[in-house]
Amino acid sequence: MKDEWIPANHPRADSLRIREALTRFHEDSIIVPSGLIAHGRGEAFDYLLGEVTIDEAKKALKVAAAAFLLAANPVISVNGNFAALCARDVVRLASLSRASVEINLFHRSASRERKIAAHMRRAGATTVLGVGKDASASLLETLSNRRRVDPRGLLKADTVLLALEDGDRTRALRKMDKLVIAVDLNPLSRTAQEASITIVDNVIRVMPLLCEEIKKLRSTTREDLVELLRSYDNRTNLSKCLDFISSRLKKLAKTDEVSEGSLPEEGLARISI
Amino acid sequence: MKDEWIPANHPRADSLRIREALTRFHEDSIIVPSGLIAHGRGEAFDYLLGEVTIDEAKKALKVAAAAFLLAANPVISVNGNFAALCARDVVRLASLSRASVEINLFHRSASRERKIAAHMRRAGATTVLGVGKDASASLLETLSNRRRVDPRGLLKADTVLLALEDGDRTRALRKMDKLVIAVDLNPLSRTAQEASITIVDNVIRVMPLLCEEIKKLRSTTREDLVELLRSYDNRTNLSKCLDFISSRLKKLAKTDEVSEGSLPEEGLARISI
Repeated sequence: MKDEWIPANHPRADSLRIREALTRFHEDSIIVPSGLIAHGRGEAFDYLLGEVTIDEAKKALKVAAAAFLLAANPVISVNGNFAALCARDVVRLASLSRASVEINLFHRSASRERKIAAHMRRAGATTVLGVGKDASASLLETLSNRRRVDPRGLLKADTVLLALEDGDRTRALRKMDKLVIAVDLNPLSRTAQEASITIVDNVIRVMPLLCEEIKKLRSTTREDLVELLRSYDNRTNLSKCLDFISSRLKKLAKTDEVSEGSLPEEGLARISI
Repeated sequence: MKDEWIPANHPRADSLRIREALTRFHEDSIIVPSGLIAHGRGEAFDYLLGEVTIDEAKKALKVAAAAFLLAANPVISVNGNFAALCARDVVRLASLSRASVEINLFHRSASRERKIAAHMRRAGATTVLGVGKDASASLLETLSNRRRVDPRGLLKADTVLLALEDGDRTRALRKMDKLVIAVDLNPLSRTAQEASITIVDNVIRVMPLLCEEIKKLRSTTREDLVELLRSYDNRTNLSKCLDFISSRLKKLAKTDEVSEGSLPEEGLARISI
């Protein structure tokens, strides 16, 4: 990356800066190659949303906050990408909601786990579950060794927040009858579709908003919180997210955002016909 | 990647296999981290297309084939991702269309160039331009050292095929008044919008189709080929691609592809209210 510099007026400057940060985390082995590919998928969907938190995401966020407040054993499940992008906000959310933080990796290795745990501790985490022999339970029916979970964390959790996660994992947690809150930019992903509450938004924007929402709902009665959850339908919310993207694309297809560029007359003339 | 295996019935098996291949190319330094992120963006857009070559792409493909047949100096511009995904097809297209193959990297290093050139030669390429001191010309007004081009290749090219390319690069080539054919899954990307002919499709599907199309059009008169180009409007084609994705999302929003998953009743009951 040494030969690259990002001019402030580059149309994708923010996005490029995050990419650079992820590349550094990749060099530190906190993010694996497939995590970089996953980040790219997220970028594309965020682009389609217009890189803003849409109303449907705000609604899901509020319900997620209620779920956190109602939970007896909330757990924030952290993988490499989530740790790289949101370590401080994960710690803040955990503290606000008395949630545990557990590391769960698809590409698991003792060294990666330790590195991510160290990164979380540097961000302020006091306890980080799921590291090494602590992940002694094996109830999740997933394809990878992420089936290992911590008995103090994901095994006994009633509510789990996960972000940038794969479908098998999400399905396994749902099968264990946990309330799963997923942050996923792709409303069609298996994670988005398997989760109990799907926040279709960039996790970087979601985490601070979720913390704010939890603070706001703190004085709400349990009955009202339960009502918030009961009246929420994830399928409807996902459909509306798809509708939003669809309408936005329809609009973009009609505007000048699609370039004027057709064939270069001069270029065509120069072709030897 | 050692601990991972991809079951044949995995819903995303093809996609996972390509990801694994790219990870190996990344380990060999043929693909850089930002190339993996770019691949992820492509995956997302391909997913939105339904992972098929849509009619608009077929139309652009045909016009691109005509452009290749009319070109005096066609060049296929190859970066790490393009080489990793399509080396054999690049060689085949170059041979069919008497095009040169030139390596042009955003993250340029002598060692990466040599590795990619070796990869292209293993795939059957006889001449690979743009390597080392051969890239002695510097006319492209881009931000990176990809401004270096080969005087025998991109400098004198009248028609350039590029895939998985960035916007600055594409714009610079257009400013040099070249006919640029871009393969890009994102119809809103700057490359897609700056190019003369944008094929909105997965480059893996495009390359064999482009070869077939060139064979089919070989017996077409030059007048008819020129008419194909003149009657093509890239802006209209891009709009139709956006319309296609938009309509597909609208349809998906209404069908069972959006999951049944709402809140787990049991899970909710277990929450200590």
